[in-house]
Amino acid sequence: MNADPLTPAPTLAMVGLGRMGANMARRLARGGAHVHGFDAQPEARAALADEPGVVLHASLADAVSALPAPRTVWLMLPAGEPSETALAELVARLAPGDLIVDGANANYLDSQRHARELEAHGLRFADCGVSGGVWGLANGYCLMYGADAEAAARLAPIARLLAPAPDRGWLHCGPPGSGHFVKMIHNGIEYGAMQAYAEGFALLEGKTEFDLDLAAVGELWRHGSVVRSWLLDLTVDALRDPDALDSVAPYVADSGEGRWTVDESVRQGTPAPVIALALMSRFASQGRADVGNRLLSLMRKGFGGHAVKTK
Amino acid sequence: MNADPLTPAPTLAMVGLGRMGANMARRLARGGAHVHGFDAQPEARAALADEPGVVLHASLADAVSALPAPRTVWLMLPAGEPSETALAELVARLAPGDLIVDGANANYLDSQRHARELEAHGLRFADCGVSGGVWGLANGYCLMYGADAEAAARLAPIARLLAPAPDRGWLHCGPPGSGHFVKMIHNGIEYGAMQAYAEGFALLEGKTEFDLDLAAVGELWRHGSVVRSWLLDLTVDALRDPDALDSVAPYVADSGEGRWTVDESVRQGTPAPVIALALMSRFASQGRADVGNRLLSLMRKGFGGHAVKTK
Repeated sequence: MNADPLTPAPTLAMVGLGRMGANMARRLARGGAHVHGFDAQPEARAALADEPGVVLHASLADAVSALPAPRTVWLMLPAGEPSETALAELVARLAPGDLIVDGANANYLDSQRHARELEAHGLRFADCGVSGGVWGLANGYCLMYGADAEAAARLAPIARLLAPAPDRGWLHCGPPGSGHFVKMIHNGIEYGAMQAYAEGFALLEGKTEFDLDLAAVGELWRHGSVVRSWLLDLTVDALRDPDALDSVAPYVADSGEGRWTVDESVRQGTPAPVIALALMSRFASQGRADVGNRLLSLMRKGFGGHAVKTK
Repeated sequence: MNADPLTPAPTLAMVGLGRMGANMARRLARGGAHVHGFDAQPEARAALADEPGVVLHASLADAVSALPAPRTVWLMLPAGEPSETALAELVARLAPGDLIVDGANANYLDSQRHARELEAHGLRFADCGVSGGVWGLANGYCLMYGADAEAAARLAPIARLLAPAPDRGWLHCGPPGSGHFVKMIHNGIEYGAMQAYAEGFALLEGKTEFDLDLAAVGELWRHGSVVRSWLLDLTVDALRDPDALDSVAPYVADSGEGRWTVDESVRQGTPAPVIALALMSRFASQGRADVGNRLLSLMRKGFGGHAVKTK
């Protein structure tokens, strides 16, 4: 899978072997990379025990010590405290010229700060947005990274293994911070596009007189229609189970990138109304519109004597 | 291309040889169908003169007369007056058992009415939503139709030729009206999804400090990302021309189906906030928010003494 047989197979530490990190370690190892894996959870390490090409370590220190200089450490930890803690430890354990890649869904403003802080210690930094979800192991990941030229060059052989193909699906977007920025916008688009599909299917379902087969309509749209997409493919996969819609609560979590995209819209003064409304719709699904809706019900009673629905 | 060699090649009239109708006539003829084409515009007919398998007629009457009974007439006329006029003429010229397929982007409520009116004359009717745009000739069309069982069976051999493949990309959705209903919802989703991409790319462009290459980011996202889609493919094609964004005015037309989808949301009481907002954003792009924005500017001046921007 390595594009250039003259490029030696990369060696790196993968820190954080959760759903994303573990599959990325597998894909790298299967592509010929030498992967030193570490996760604080023994179960996470155990899940990779049978993977040839992944050497597991019981501590971050051990994983780092196993690397040849200059070292490359790829973090796949939750953004915030876990990533900050690991970065602080790595500052103590790495040497000038070593490279840290943060593959978490971190806020790009934090990544810009990390790049500055690590540079003061002589360490190189790249922020890498990773898309592909649980399908990345088989299909490859879409990688968008921000880094200076030297760090980007060091990252490229790894990116070629993780991407869907050596020549596509990875991009050095710009300076440090730009990788997580591009990933943030990617996820913002995802919020808006997902919401559009959800609303459309809800309208299909709501037209009871036509008794439409939602899975069949979705499958139809996958072929030749303007709205064909990978999100539609996933939606159809889900709808094939006739109990799927009844099996989940109408509660949609949000995990940060949607909020950051709306923050960025406000920061720039660039309107992103549909992305913002998709985020607000998720908040409403979480019950956060209930207070407002109760108030509206009371107002209708107050000025119009309308009946209110009690609990 | 015909799936079943035992099924005789279909014969039909294609009425309306505009951008969509002409390419559908071509695709049908190249698939082995016998197509009798008619358009009131001589230039539209002339454009198909070199297409083997398409026989051109100078009047609707001639095209209908050339068909063997039971006749199949496919309309690809603009919804509204042109379609109504043709339907009225066809009522006079067709015989019981003949089939009319309306492939326009018609309002499904009109299609339900047409089905009832034509049934009173013994004529069969199918409403067929057609997606695929100018790429349909090469890639095939996504076809969603509403019809009774007999009309649907008559339509199937034609659908198999127009679709991307004989076994996919076409669906008998339900009773008359359901085809145009499903197509309407398809287009509503398209409004929301397009708007999400547009907002995301605008935020990328607005982050000037990163100097991002929009075409490169879009191309990246086509490979392995969660937002990969045909709409993204088209967006990237457009962005490859560095002058593309400067070459068009920031004015987005709307052509009916978005409005109808929002009407349907109101009719059902099923929320479609993102689709509605995408439609409202198009209205704003057409200058229809200017009065409101002028008023807001005057209000700010009135209560806060804020400076207003004059023309």
